[in-house]
Amino acid sequence: MANPILIEVTRGPLVESWHRGAIAVASASGAMALQLGDVAQPIYPRSAIKALQALPLVESGAADRFGYGPQEIALACASHTGTERHTRLAAAMLERIGLKVDALGCGAHIPLGGGAAKALIKSHREPTQLHNNCSGKHAGMLATALHLGEPTEAYWEVDHPVQQRVLDVLVDMSGVALGPEVLGFDGCSVPNWAMPLSALACMFARFVTGEGLPPERRAAVERILAACWEHPELVAGKGCADTVVMRELPGQVFMKTGAEGVYCGGFPKLGLGFALKIDDGTRRAAAGTTMALVEKIYPAARGLMNRSSIRTWRGAEVGTIRSSTQLEGALAALKS
Amino acid sequence: MANPILIEVTRGPLVESWHRGAIAVASASGAMALQLGDVAQPIYPRSAIKALQALPLVESGAADRFGYGPQEIALACASHTGTERHTRLAAAMLERIGLKVDALGCGAHIPLGGGAAKALIKSHREPTQLHNNCSGKHAGMLATALHLGEPTEAYWEVDHPVQQRVLDVLVDMSGVALGPEVLGFDGCSVPNWAMPLSALACMFARFVTGEGLPPERRAAVERILAACWEHPELVAGKGCADTVVMRELPGQVFMKTGAEGVYCGGFPKLGLGFALKIDDGTRRAAAGTTMALVEKIYPAARGLMNRSSIRTWRGAEVGTIRSSTQLEGALAALKS
Repeated sequence: MANPILIEVTRGPLVESWHRGAIAVASASGAMALQLGDVAQPIYPRSAIKALQALPLVESGAADRFGYGPQEIALACASHTGTERHTRLAAAMLERIGLKVDALGCGAHIPLGGGAAKALIKSHREPTQLHNNCSGKHAGMLATALHLGEPTEAYWEVDHPVQQRVLDVLVDMSGVALGPEVLGFDGCSVPNWAMPLSALACMFARFVTGEGLPPERRAAVERILAACWEHPELVAGKGCADTVVMRELPGQVFMKTGAEGVYCGGFPKLGLGFALKIDDGTRRAAAGTTMALVEKIYPAARGLMNRSSIRTWRGAEVGTIRSSTQLEGALAALKS
Repeated sequence: MANPILIEVTRGPLVESWHRGAIAVASASGAMALQLGDVAQPIYPRSAIKALQALPLVESGAADRFGYGPQEIALACASHTGTERHTRLAAAMLERIGLKVDALGCGAHIPLGGGAAKALIKSHREPTQLHNNCSGKHAGMLATALHLGEPTEAYWEVDHPVQQRVLDVLVDMSGVALGPEVLGFDGCSVPNWAMPLSALACMFARFVTGEGLPPERRAAVERILAACWEHPELVAGKGCADTVVMRELPGQVFMKTGAEGVYCGGFPKLGLGFALKIDDGTRRAAAGTTMALVEKIYPAARGLMNRSSIRTWRGAEVGTIRSSTQLEGALAALKS
């Protein structure tokens, strides 16, 4: 059975391309508020779970020991755009623990942000590991290892305590057993475990509400969420949906993109988490589906992101990116 | 009915993403050698038909009048990477007809080629319309209009004789009636008419073999093909599949990418044309499917493009891009 079409891309009178996928919206108890497509198949959450990968940084006491405040914690949850502000803060996180850039294992890539990429190229510099969108997450992992007296080498390997703690967090929070049969590696070299969208949605409901969590974890989760809502521009960057929406709706929407068409997040005031995956991995469809969901729940989010136009290079609108009738129908049922 | 999965993207033990689509391989007579998925639904061929859009340039005598040789003709068929060589040649085409860059209607965008984009940014220059991957096509259209005494303004509009001649070529070569119900506009502002993949494959079989074409058109087609095979680096650019394969297999493979997951081309020595469209519009799947087809027919093409690895930023292979068993099965049947 193919997943349903969630997003359609039109040109002139025709639908030119379309994107299939699945989406789950659930409460912390596991009750499903919406499910469309196959929400039982394990999918890699990729960077959408960075806020959960950051839990050991806070829970271990490493953040406090090294004086990491809301900005550093937000950057640990980030897929950032690689601006000067992001890279300086990542460098400062490393400096605070007495390590240099070469301690990072994330690898280097040109900044995700167009402006940052252009500025770097204009200055005739090559990207470093600090420009990697995951540099904050990696700096946080190094800080945790150092704080707990563990080796800072090969902290990205699956049997290193840093990654085993992340695994424990994910198993605890999702209730899903995660073994080698669902173990893949992210572009930044750290392990990533696949789980069903239904479990991810439920995990994010727990994350944004704190429901059912022990007091220490609840406190850590609240601190991470507050950091992301206080500094949404550090979690992604200028013009990015995560930044724009969380700046407009702090305390109401938490959302985080992941590679290959993944999005996760939650609505604490409604007690709901969500998780979605576009089959083909495209960002335009993942962002389109997420914004359709967010806008349905919070009409104030409408117009924050201009995602609906396909334009010529001279700016004329020649097509649109729109929700499918099936997605619209499912969202309408969710709202009521 | 959903189209079949053509390409799978794996990570660790799982298939992380997948791409559905349809592909047709046909002879000039219209006999189908392979059809997988819905080959009857009209799809916009986008830039995959640039070589056919260039026919009036040659047939009208405009190319001869303005001294356009194989290089200029190849550039008229191109989705080029915007290097100095491409932009200088496009500028020279305009100079030859006494027009300036602002006569172009394609709009400006940063060069498609990573190296060219970087070089432009490093030099602190903004892209012009010459950097648009379609600048050669547009210069050719202007040359044709000028040669035939038509206005050079608004040559991109559907009722301008330049576009009506393209429409006539497409209707003639495909045998498909093309009306406003299948008319869309390309990113470079010119009209693009949708037609079934089966018709596109058949049209490309006629194009690469000349079968059934009047002598003048046959001569024009041969001149265009020869130009592309002589200067494949002008049709795309360094490292691009179209350039790499046509340099290795001139006279044997013609291929041309289009936006939104389209590929068209043909194998003159086998009397076959092909056309494919990935539902979701992704390039990796269109290129992967095309290379699987080309490699099946010409094993010499194996290894020309490294398209199979998903790697971390530090270079470790963590996944693959591979043909689905359904695509492999269909290709095996084609070969036998």
